[in-house]
Amino acid sequence: MASLKSRLQHSFTPAALRSYLAEFISTFLFVFASVGAATSAWKMAPAAASDPSSLTAIAIANAFALSAAVYIAANISGGHVNPAVTFGMAVGGHITIPTAVFYWIAQMLASVMACLLLKTLTVGQHIPIHTIPSEMTGFGASILEGTMTFGLVYTVYASRRVAAVGGVGPLAVGFIVGANVLASGPFTGGSMNPACAFGAALIGGSFKNQAVYWVGPLIGAALAGILYDNVVFPVQATDDSLRGVSDGVGDI
Amino acid sequence: MASLKSRLQHSFTPAALRSYLAEFISTFLFVFASVGAATSAWKMAPAAASDPSSLTAIAIANAFALSAAVYIAANISGGHVNPAVTFGMAVGGHITIPTAVFYWIAQMLASVMACLLLKTLTVGQHIPIHTIPSEMTGFGASILEGTMTFGLVYTVYASRRVAAVGGVGPLAVGFIVGANVLASGPFTGGSMNPACAFGAALIGGSFKNQAVYWVGPLIGAALAGILYDNVVFPVQATDDSLRGVSDGVGDI
Amino acid sequence: MASLKSRLQHSFTPAALRSYLAEFISTFLFVFASVGAATSAWKMAPAAASDPSSLTAIAIANAFALSAAVYIAANISGGHVNPAVTFGMAVGGHITIPTAVFYWIAQMLASVMACLLLKTLTVGQHIPIHTIPSEMTGFGASILEGTMTFGLVYTVYASRRVAAVGGVGPLAVGFIVGANVLASGPFTGGSMNPACAFGAALIGGSFKNQAVYWVGPLIGAALAGILYDNVVFPVQATDDSLRGVSDGVGDI
Amino acid sequence: MASLKSRLQHSFTPAALRSYLAEFISTFLFVFASVGAATSAWKMAPAAASDPSSLTAIAIANAFALSAAVYIAANISGGHVNPAVTFGMAVGGHITIPTAVFYWIAQMLASVMACLLLKTLTVGQHIPIHTIPSEMTGFGASILEGTMTFGLVYTVYASRRVAAVGGVGPLAVGFIVGANVLASGPFTGGSMNPACAFGAALIGGSFKNQAVYWVGPLIGAALAGILYDNVVFPVQATDDSLRGVSDGVGDI
Repeated sequence: MASLKSRLQHSFTPAALRSYLAEFISTFLFVFASVGAATSAWKMAPAAASDPSSLTAIAIANAFALSAAVYIAANISGGHVNPAVTFGMAVGGHITIPTAVFYWIAQMLASVMACLLLKTLTVGQHIPIHTIPSEMTGFGASILEGTMTFGLVYTVYASRRVAAVGGVGPLAVGFIVGANVLASGPFTGGSMNPACAFGAALIGGSFKNQAVYWVGPLIGAALAGILYDNVVFPVQATDDSLRGVSDGVGDI
Repeated sequence: MASLKSRLQHSFTPAALRSYLAEFISTFLFVFASVGAATSAWKMAPAAASDPSSLTAIAIANAFALSAAVYIAANISGGHVNPAVTFGMAVGGHITIPTAVFYWIAQMLASVMACLLLKTLTVGQHIPIHTIPSEMTGFGASILEGTMTFGLVYTVYASRRVAAVGGVGPLAVGFIVGANVLASGPFTGGSMNPACAFGAALIGGSFKNQAVYWVGPLIGAALAGILYDNVVFPVQATDDSLRGVSDGVGDI
Repeated sequence: MASLKSRLQHSFTPAALRSYLAEFISTFLFVFASVGAATSAWKMAPAAASDPSSLTAIAIANAFALSAAVYIAANISGGHVNPAVTFGMAVGGHITIPTAVFYWIAQMLASVMACLLLKTLTVGQHIPIHTIPSEMTGFGASILEGTMTFGLVYTVYASRRVAAVGGVGPLAVGFIVGANVLASGPFTGGSMNPACAFGAALIGGSFKNQAVYWVGPLIGAALAGILYDNVVFPVQATDDSLRGVSDGVGDI
Repeated sequence: MASLKSRLQHSFTPAALRSYLAEFISTFLFVFASVGAATSAWKMAPAAASDPSSLTAIAIANAFALSAAVYIAANISGGHVNPAVTFGMAVGGHITIPTAVFYWIAQMLASVMACLLLKTLTVGQHIPIHTIPSEMTGFGASILEGTMTFGLVYTVYASRRVAAVGGVGPLAVGFIVGANVLASGPFTGGSMNPACAFGAALIGGSFKNQAVYWVGPLIGAALAGILYDNVVFPVQATDDSLRGVSDGVGDI
């Protein structure tokens, strides 16, 4: 019990509280731009999902906004900006469970508030929700979202380890997501982020297929974390190239 | 009074004058490309605001031009390229008020001259002005522009502090603006820059809703500066990771 | 024989096996996004090859996904993600022949599995295959693909040598490929990657002109490797700027 | 005379010859992608200059290809890839006149060969030539191209001086050009590169308005060089932040 208390205390240090705030702000900014671009494309060309130029606009918004959102939180919270990434980090032991729970709360709140603000500011525009076409099953859609989230979390893990080489890690994270939005646009919409999918669904008013955007991403994230740390690049294999990694909240 | 005189003298050192020139040139180049892309899109497809591919063109021009404009001025003036950023920096105490005033003058002059040159060179093409759709109020539009400018200035603040980690800060700044242009295109146009909005309005010939592009961005910028330095990442919390920061004009 | 045995043993060390896995994952993620974007564009606008906005979507997916795929494998396998790059590295003596063979196997398997998963998940969508227009000969198409692959492998070689200067090498690699997709879209489709072309052909069901996507890229890659190391930037010419380069598997 | 002989000998050292080759290859790759993207857009949508999505494709190709082309030559020749940049560097005294002449020869040859190869490989496709609309004068078009080239060369100069801060200089150079293509597409086409304009004109078969693409860029480049080194960021003002700069061929 002392241990649990100590771990909970660990989640309420000033540094921990700052990291929750950093996650909140980064997720808010990312969801605002990402869902905003979809809203904007929808206003200009309804049923935008069937138009390559709308999809390109949405994909670029995702890539650019996520690059920036990860970058600005990287040195404070690790720049997860996504419950699936936080889950993948928890599975790999890089963040404690209590802290991960607070990260999730911050991310979920941020996404809902971003979507709500967007809906209010645009005076009730349609907030597009990630959907899947009739020919796809929820199972297939989950695998698609899971595969893409695997790629995202794998990239996050890699960026922790090659950080000394250069500072383009946040761009790589944003870019893999942007590319995957282009790959999956007319199929699942390319969420890879349960917070973003939840916020849009809550404010947009439909939770149809919501499970797809949770089950797949969380499993994909866990697999990426386990695979990277244990098989692809085990810590002991590269002591020399490994920078000092703390176990604190700021540990990315 | 001696203090005031001393502070004003501080604003006329060779380094200070060079930083005003750097702001002038960077703002000129940014506004030229940003407003130029809108002018160009308008010529190709009038009423471009309702077309996703035109919006993508404008957003990419903003992202790319701002990345470059911030990069080339970063080591001289801090690369504000935007009165809202300068305001946010002044609120945080990173630039003195007199110097900030001269930054504003340089930025405003640069924007007006860029728009004027554009109008002249294109032999009187329509210079598109940021507008808001009829269903939106000026208040809502101000909040939208303010929210996005908050994201921009927050990114600028973050890039000052993680500078040691890598050199991608100017790209993050450009990318968050590009993403927000995609999010807000058919709503407010995505200015986040009072100088750019003023220059286009003056040369384009309409100051309708101009207040939207000043009130929102300045408030958003101030909030970002206060929040980042005092709550998210207070200086004392991270002495070890903080690079030496001077109080001079070049202080970014 | 002892030497051959020793070289083969060299290809089965834990580090070697990890590098094959890294190549497999990076190639899988790249092909998934690249072919996925083409599939997605095709679903939205059939015969996408004749539409600039579809081509832009595909080119951005290639650029972003390859940047990330190279970045995440760079410190493990060198981030080839492409049999032509591996061939170019083998020609330059930077990877042994047995190891290169295992790289090829990993890349080919990854591409086929990515295309197969894509076909399955999208419930039988058309997987677009690189083709050449009727007016072009296979010889001309090979030279076009070879010229562009020359540019890719030359960039990979350059990024090995200027690595100390900055970390943007993986972005440069992704960007040159994205640009070349835009240049060659309606001609050869811009593959520059035999694994990607093979996977799409196998799952898409047509090997027409497949030779074009092997002969040209392999020759272009070999020429780039020979030219860069021996003429453009010979090792002895720049001992001082050369970082320590090992001869192991991880040698990029 | 001894001095002239010595300077000419300076232009025939192995390092000098390698730098000409590096310029040739980088310029070839850039022009191939840049003019190729225009050719490709033209094939898909004739009269592409009047379509925002075609312009976006061309602008992205320019930005991505130039970023890569500058990056791969940066440590060998300085990565000019453009006679206007070389001229701007010569005006600033960073490259000797004889060496600059050989850079020009390499760049011009590369551009002509890239356009010729493109014309041949695409079996006689129309090679789009930069043109100006009927309402513009050559004088105005020159100022437009000159203004944008000023921005390009200013960015090149800045990237020489902030190199120690990070490695994103080549991206900034590519990005400012991509943004300016979007700004000037339907007006002058956004060349900023006399070699590229010349190659396209020679192979495309029309030298109409060719002077526009030489006079403006060369004057803009010279002004940028003079302004940056003498006013914006004089060497003596920043000795401490200046990395060692040699006077050799590789001096960028």
